[in-house]
Amino acid sequence: MKNSRSFISLVFLLIFSFGRIANAQSDAVIQLKADSILRLLTLEEKVHMLHAVSGFASGGVSRLGIPDMAMTDGPHGIRIDYVESTYFPTGVCLAATWNPALGHAYGAALGQEAAFRKKNVLLGPGINIIRSPLNGRNFEYMSEDPYLISRMAPQYIQGIQEQGVIACVKHFAANNQETKRTVINVEMSERALREIYLPGFKAAVTEGKANAVMGAYNKFRGEWASHNNYLLKHILKDEWHFKGVVISDWAAIHSTMQALWNGCDIEMGTNVGKNWGRSYMGDTVVALTKAGKVQEYVVDDKVRRILFVMLKAKMIGTTSNTGSANTKEHQQVSAKIAEEGMVLLKNENHLLPLPNTIKNIAVIGGIADRKLANGGGSSGVRPFYEITPLEGFKNIAGNATKVNYAMGYMVGNNKANDSLIQKAVNTAASADVAIVVAGWTHIQDNEGADKTDMNMPWGQNELINAVRKANPKTIVVLSGGSPLDIRQWKENVPAILQAWYPGMEGGNVLAKIIFGQINPSGKLPMTFPKALADCPAHVLGQYPGDSVNVYYNDDIYVGYRYFDTYKVAPQYAFGHGLSYTSFSYGNLQIKKNAVEFTITNNGRTAGAEVAQLYIKSGKSALPRPEKELKGFEKIFLKAGETKKVVISLSQEAFSYFNDLSNRWEIDPTANLVLIGSSSADIRLQGTIDFQNTGITEDRAKKKSK
Amino acid sequence: MKNSRSFISLVFLLIFSFGRIANAQSDAVIQLKADSILRLLTLEEKVHMLHAVSGFASGGVSRLGIPDMAMTDGPHGIRIDYVESTYFPTGVCLAATWNPALGHAYGAALGQEAAFRKKNVLLGPGINIIRSPLNGRNFEYMSEDPYLISRMAPQYIQGIQEQGVIACVKHFAANNQETKRTVINVEMSERALREIYLPGFKAAVTEGKANAVMGAYNKFRGEWASHNNYLLKHILKDEWHFKGVVISDWAAIHSTMQALWNGCDIEMGTNVGKNWGRSYMGDTVVALTKAGKVQEYVVDDKVRRILFVMLKAKMIGTTSNTGSANTKEHQQVSAKIAEEGMVLLKNENHLLPLPNTIKNIAVIGGIADRKLANGGGSSGVRPFYEITPLEGFKNIAGNATKVNYAMGYMVGNNKANDSLIQKAVNTAASADVAIVVAGWTHIQDNEGADKTDMNMPWGQNELINAVRKANPKTIVVLSGGSPLDIRQWKENVPAILQAWYPGMEGGNVLAKIIFGQINPSGKLPMTFPKALADCPAHVLGQYPGDSVNVYYNDDIYVGYRYFDTYKVAPQYAFGHGLSYTSFSYGNLQIKKNAVEFTITNNGRTAGAEVAQLYIKSGKSALPRPEKELKGFEKIFLKAGETKKVVISLSQEAFSYFNDLSNRWEIDPTANLVLIGSSSADIRLQGTIDFQNTGITEDRAKKKSK
Repeated sequence: MKNSRSFISLVFLLIFSFGRIANAQSDAVIQLKADSILRLLTLEEKVHMLHAVSGFASGGVSRLGIPDMAMTDGPHGIRIDYVESTYFPTGVCLAATWNPALGHAYGAALGQEAAFRKKNVLLGPGINIIRSPLNGRNFEYMSEDPYLISRMAPQYIQGIQEQGVIACVKHFAANNQETKRTVINVEMSERALREIYLPGFKAAVTEGKANAVMGAYNKFRGEWASHNNYLLKHILKDEWHFKGVVISDWAAIHSTMQALWNGCDIEMGTNVGKNWGRSYMGDTVVALTKAGKVQEYVVDDKVRRILFVMLKAKMIGTTSNTGSANTKEHQQVSAKIAEEGMVLLKNENHLLPLPNTIKNIAVIGGIADRKLANGGGSSGVRPFYEITPLEGFKNIAGNATKVNYAMGYMVGNNKANDSLIQKAVNTAASADVAIVVAGWTHIQDNEGADKTDMNMPWGQNELINAVRKANPKTIVVLSGGSPLDIRQWKENVPAILQAWYPGMEGGNVLAKIIFGQINPSGKLPMTFPKALADCPAHVLGQYPGDSVNVYYNDDIYVGYRYFDTYKVAPQYAFGHGLSYTSFSYGNLQIKKNAVEFTITNNGRTAGAEVAQLYIKSGKSALPRPEKELKGFEKIFLKAGETKKVVISLSQEAFSYFNDLSNRWEIDPTANLVLIGSSSADIRLQGTIDFQNTGITEDRAKKKSK
Repeated sequence: MKNSRSFISLVFLLIFSFGRIANAQSDAVIQLKADSILRLLTLEEKVHMLHAVSGFASGGVSRLGIPDMAMTDGPHGIRIDYVESTYFPTGVCLAATWNPALGHAYGAALGQEAAFRKKNVLLGPGINIIRSPLNGRNFEYMSEDPYLISRMAPQYIQGIQEQGVIACVKHFAANNQETKRTVINVEMSERALREIYLPGFKAAVTEGKANAVMGAYNKFRGEWASHNNYLLKHILKDEWHFKGVVISDWAAIHSTMQALWNGCDIEMGTNVGKNWGRSYMGDTVVALTKAGKVQEYVVDDKVRRILFVMLKAKMIGTTSNTGSANTKEHQQVSAKIAEEGMVLLKNENHLLPLPNTIKNIAVIGGIADRKLANGGGSSGVRPFYEITPLEGFKNIAGNATKVNYAMGYMVGNNKANDSLIQKAVNTAASADVAIVVAGWTHIQDNEGADKTDMNMPWGQNELINAVRKANPKTIVVLSGGSPLDIRQWKENVPAILQAWYPGMEGGNVLAKIIFGQINPSGKLPMTFPKALADCPAHVLGQYPGDSVNVYYNDDIYVGYRYFDTYKVAPQYAFGHGLSYTSFSYGNLQIKKNAVEFTITNNGRTAGAEVAQLYIKSGKSALPRPEKELKGFEKIFLKAGETKKVVISLSQEAFSYFNDLSNRWEIDPTANLVLIGSSSADIRLQGTIDFQNTGITEDRAKKKSK
């Protein structure tokens, strides 16, 4: 006992003396501390830190004051079954805000809640590329576009980590489907990997400084992603200089030696009952090391990484942020993201916003009366409260406005229900406006399985057409994490709003948008195709593969890169989203390393526009997509106001990955700069000659005045 | 027709005009030519060049004068069933010469034979690391030591390619066993890969300038080696800047998309009958490309590489070397390699060489009377002639010496044959000296299967002990490609000679060594362990794995790196080999970037010594092997002569691969330089402080005066 106590004293001494040397602790100083602690550990203690010691914690060493590392699910709220948390809009809604500052606010609030619950690691964000509309987890992810992800994710991560909580970005990598996710082998070109599937993770690690990365379930090029030498050691730890820890997805480890050698640091979720020592990286590693079959430095490297992130998160010898949960402020963050994330897809003849003098609205749809927080798999949350659409309309509608509800369809009931439809038609016929809330719940948008199609479920097509017939002023609100096939009624309906999964304040926000208290400003972070048969993963590539392999033959032609290049018309283009006001663009000036232009709000209401900058390459050694997003800026404008927008460009904006030479290259040629309100609505264009740009910066920086 | 002819004219015009610009054609000029030809090809023609059009040829385009690319097996001679070729000693015997100049002579002779047979590609050398004595193909390979391989292989390759023939180094990579070779997945640390398994290939490509590399059968980290993104694209083509072609091993392709994307250029051996278009990289590729599912630049890259190596080998528009076959000169090269490659393992009381006045020798053993050229799998050769040991003794023994033969054991007959042993005993008893030729034939040393143990077969142990009892002057000559377990008789027998598979002149060379016409100078290119249970692949690692995976847990501890570090006594150490004379070492001087010392021949006969330089690292961040070969020089000395030896050292000699930081590193520390006659017989040692060496060269260069 005496011995243990003196050890503890030593550790604290080391920590505090170092602390005095460098207050703003540099990574190098923290590394030295980690090394000092490492030298005090026995082999058994070190190995104890490499694996789970409960469902959601890896091992610590209490003798030295090193705690277990407590983890929690929840990109959208802290997932603990028996306590309530703030339920935030899911990842795809955050991405639809196109507002990186909201990513930061989201992360900060979430981090505070994690700290309050004494959780050290927040298992998020999830940033896998949305490759097919069918992926069951699209709702958790962000976008089909790597640039948009790489602008949103780092802010979210920094927000979390500023609270003394470790963000664990996931799922690294190529986990783009749930079908056979634990066995499927993903094959793609190096170019697709580098241009499409990795940039978000690279930004998360190099800019967001994420301290943890979660390996994926699938195989990549034949090797399980959670212990994949190429992904984890070569790219993540070597190329990107990642100093943090790689945590396996739950039960994604398949081999002691692969886990040891191929980059995994912490093994979680392996089915060993409560015999945690039986983990792949458990007692076996002690035995192998003692037998000389494993070099101890391999273990040391993992433990050093764990200690490093523990020290960064102030888990050892100091008191970390005590956090807060479910505060008014957090609820406002949740609401704000929904406000900026919902996307007005269609608004014929300015049907929206509704005047608050309206007498009577019909709210229709099983989903309108349904709470959605606690579903979808590991991202499900038990919220303190959740405002449904129906509640939202009742809360927000003026006293003069009557809200009548009809179910219209039964969630989970596959067939159109004529009686429910008839009642909905009656309700709609007698109202000034009918609002149908349709689309998906977590029955479709769910971890572990993909959707079989992108059809409207439960007789919703029939319902919408019947309601529309009864009341031409029919507004459709779409719930769900990715696009649906809306061809059966899209042309008939005057207004459509994409609501995603909008968090605990979602119903209020929805009603505020409908009634014009909020001017929508979300933009689609993914292409909405007309039909599944138009999607590149299904046309050019394979989805979901043959149950052994899935070949991403769609290559770099993911999302709008496909629709634009192959000239396939989408239902709604990437970047699309309407406002209650209108914006005009002008005064394009192409400077040496930046593009400048003005945006004017031409309407009578304040609003925000997301100005998008695409590059269309000139003559190139390799085929290139028609255009690629390389900059954007969300601009808030009062009625009548004009602002100047400056978007800086770096080399990155012009480079592509040449998978023959295996490096990023730039063709010395003139490129077109396209500035637009969406990928399909280009307002300004000019020529930029790369050779004359004088661009030397490493990364685009954006600014607006 | 007119059109075709004008195309041909154009091609020739291009070739000749470029030819005039640059006589010593640089790679860049050849690349330009390749590009010019590429532009003339249709998609179908290009794809036709990516796959086999017969058992041993890939497609050409006769319309443009591009011939099929004719390939031939044969690291040890041209393998064509119906014609004779020179049969050279196998790879392991070449390595045992420790004489790079002989590698060059070997390659040149072989290349001339290939050219004579109108073969464009010689499928060799085979340079996989000898990891276990059991591997069925050890006899074809070179060594357990990457440095020795990287000194021998480039010379062999240059010799071939100077004849206008493309050398195809194989099998890339980690093909270290025949058991389950077409399905096994090899897992090893990055350090083992970089320090042990790759350096030979790197030297073959970067120094030897091999124009072709053959992918292996096995999987590496989950992906088939013949279309392995990491090995072929990242390491070979990107890191090492390999501009040549990757040819699959025969029937080693398993997927069109993997082959296309993951670095394979030419697909051979796929079982498609004669419907060559059905190859994985056949008609399917045309269809996929036309459908936009494969980018044509992927095909172009492969064809450009094929055209590049064709132009380098002067296959298009020019007349290449017409070669020669089976000349006296080639036979002399074959003999010379055997002379310097056979290794005298033991020679108690100077029993050898035998005086040519000896009256009577008994030659014993089924192998003594057996031709061995045409066996072992794809490396088998049909020689013009092959001198067996028995014939050799008859040819070389003086007229006064009688040669009596007894079979002793029957090749292939598993049990000791008492009657044959008794006859051998009688023959031995009545002779002055008994020479037993024992060991393996290609029944054991054979492609496609490993040995089950390293035991002496067919009752040879019983035979040798019985003969030794009848005649104390018993000499054992060992046939085979790797070590045998000789513990049952090793201590009793006064002389042992390792003869390997010594080529068509092997019998003559053997007899010349036994009778002292040649002074042996071969050194073991691999450790000879006492027993299989002492071998690192079997003690620390796995061999041959569980039929799905094989884990190289022996890591960098291959061969003497294990025996020395783990202090396990071998039967004969790496680098061991006796001479009929003796050498003394002296005057060690450690200079800034070189080590100098003298060697003196103390005996009364001329001889050659292989002076070996090992580095024993000082304090290091990672565990290091006890010592590692970093230089050697074969010195030819007359009786009484002294020569000064200078071995230059580069950074490489001090660096190790840190698989945590994923790069080569050097610890700034003092190292020991050990100079010896074998890894176990160190004669001189001194300290070299890396910081004071001033070493800046990229690669060690060696010189002797």
